[in-house]
Amino acid sequence: MRTFFSEDHRLHFPQAELSGGEFVTPYERPSRVEYILGQLKERRLGEIVAPGPVDMGPAERLLDAGFLRFLETAYDEWKAAGQGGEVIAAGMPTRRQRHDRIPRNIDGKVEYYCHASETAITGGTWRAAQSSLASAQAAQREVAGGARGAFALCRPPGHHATSDQYGGYCFINNAAVVAEMFRMGGARRVTVLDVDFHHGNGTQDIFWRRGDVMFASIHGDPLDAYPYFAGYADEIGEGEGKGPTSTCRLPPGTGYGPWAEALDGLIARIRDWGAEALVVSLGVDAYKDDPISFFKLDSPDFLDCGRRIGRMGLPTVFCMEGGYAIEQVGVNTVNVLEGFEDA
Amino acid sequence: MRTFFSEDHRLHFPQAELSGGEFVTPYERPSRVEYILGQLKERRLGEIVAPGPVDMGPAERLLDAGFLRFLETAYDEWKAAGQGGEVIAAGMPTRRQRHDRIPRNIDGKVEYYCHASETAITGGTWRAAQSSLASAQAAQREVAGGARGAFALCRPPGHHATSDQYGGYCFINNAAVVAEMFRMGGARRVTVLDVDFHHGNGTQDIFWRRGDVMFASIHGDPLDAYPYFAGYADEIGEGEGKGPTSTCRLPPGTGYGPWAEALDGLIARIRDWGAEALVVSLGVDAYKDDPISFFKLDSPDFLDCGRRIGRMGLPTVFCMEGGYAIEQVGVNTVNVLEGFEDA
Ligand SMILES: [Zn+2]
Ligand SMILES: [Zn+2]
Repeated sequence: MRTFFSEDHRLHFPQAELSGGEFVTPYERPSRVEYILGQLKERRLGEIVAPGPVDMGPAERLLDAGFLRFLETAYDEWKAAGQGGEVIAAGMPTRRQRHDRIPRNIDGKVEYYCHASETAITGGTWRAAQSSLASAQAAQREVAGGARGAFALCRPPGHHATSDQYGGYCFINNAAVVAEMFRMGGARRVTVLDVDFHHGNGTQDIFWRRGDVMFASIHGDPLDAYPYFAGYADEIGEGEGKGPTSTCRLPPGTGYGPWAEALDGLIARIRDWGAEALVVSLGVDAYKDDPISFFKLDSPDFLDCGRRIGRMGLPTVFCMEGGYAIEQVGVNTVNVLEGFEDA
Repeated sequence: MRTFFSEDHRLHFPQAELSGGEFVTPYERPSRVEYILGQLKERRLGEIVAPGPVDMGPAERLLDAGFLRFLETAYDEWKAAGQGGEVIAAGMPTRRQRHDRIPRNIDGKVEYYCHASETAITGGTWRAAQSSLASAQAAQREVAGGARGAFALCRPPGHHATSDQYGGYCFINNAAVVAEMFRMGGARRVTVLDVDFHHGNGTQDIFWRRGDVMFASIHGDPLDAYPYFAGYADEIGEGEGKGPTSTCRLPPGTGYGPWAEALDGLIARIRDWGAEALVVSLGVDAYKDDPISFFKLDSPDFLDCGRRIGRMGLPTVFCMEGGYAIEQVGVNTVNVLEGFEDA
């Protein structure tokens, strides 16, 4: 399968991630991509192609216009206000606060449009996020054009970004836009299957009231893991969206046995529901040595996971999400893709 | 009038405040208190008395039990989890997230019980917050016992703390507990008048559904100033609490003319409503040179403000809140108190 990838991801490299009351070098860093590229080449998975220009049209259908404008202008506005560091939210509208007022002040605007303060916006973030989306869009076109699968090597990732909030290293929800593009292209039902360790709260939120896009996820129990305030079993969507949402939270220490069982459960539901296209939010932080996660998958398990996904027989776009055991991210990611091809 | 003050405030001195994407020395720092003590002594306002032990009973009536337990144990739990820095929230439950799940993980617990990440918890924070409350309680007893007024030199401040969230340099809402103690002592109606530059979102929230305690505030427009997501004119309480809440947001650059007019408006409403006791959330960050605020009050204006409050003729407890133009905090604070005495 072909990989779509833009070097512009390098434009996004914050120096500071708020973690444990300190600033640390962000776990989500450019070098993650090098290990994936290395494996793709070594194992000859297929051509690596730079995407064409981004098409913001499908993103604008799905996401809040003020939010997109904010992402584009936040860094300049922040610096114009004399702030010394990168753009980092010092708060956000929380319970019993107003969610219907957008501050004029850039500090307040950042709080309004953010849901997690570990994620900094830098001068290059917007262009990097757009290039990441461009890769996802190119992969979607590849599959819409008849390929069985394609890999969007997206960076920054996207699954935590909602229609109007960034956070969790994510700015634009690539997987959600790809799902929307499948719908625009005529697929009646599309599923986003999120195998990243973390619950894809952004994707779930975007399709919360949509009956045509199903969100399915296996993730670390939010009582123990980020994003903490989403990913519980009773979150099944609302209105027309009631039903398709199907997620499974698993406890610390979960190994591949129960993980694969949960995956099979989701696959059965996806089949039953009648998805015509599949978007995989491909994080590999379920890996046993991931520094910020607590599942126990080993590298060969990712091969098997890819095979199970491949056996669904759906046109499939893989969008890169998380995975922070830097040197193993390449092997584990390409294992999923190779497993898919072998199925 | 007598001042109640505990040296234990020094136990709370975080090294890091998240501001402008960087860590800065907190604006809310121990030296603020020195300038107030200096002025109190120089101008012989009255005896400075150490409070007796804190009485957590009234606080427990008003505040969430899990929140109080969290404040007591957070630092130890954070350090036991191996976190390197002070306790700083990296996120919080925001819009369309769950507000009914309390994470087991300390990182998630901090997010659940926090509403602003500039505020760090240190090893001494809980004891300092209790000593701050003890001063407020001693001042309340002084006034309940017949004194016309008393000053609680509280540090840390309290008015941003809700029943279950800390933030804005505040942990336990001293003014709210004092109001509750007046109610327990038989006052039928009590008003908390908040003259701090920032909206007292914590106090407003605590009495949101209460018809017996009125919250009144003059503050910087939240479209332009922290706390951003509270302090708009249409916030008037709910249920039995509908009505008494009365707040006034003013734009950047507001001088004493319009500020005093707003104060007179609130005073008229407080009289009309029939308050029998008054708690003043006394912040002096409306001062023209305050580094994080934008009103233009000058030092003599605080004398006049104190006189207007004094002419209400109500038994009055002053609880110290904000004020960050460190060297002027003393003059401005004691000006309010002296104005009150002169009235
Ligand atoms: Zn992840
Ligand atoms: Zn203030």
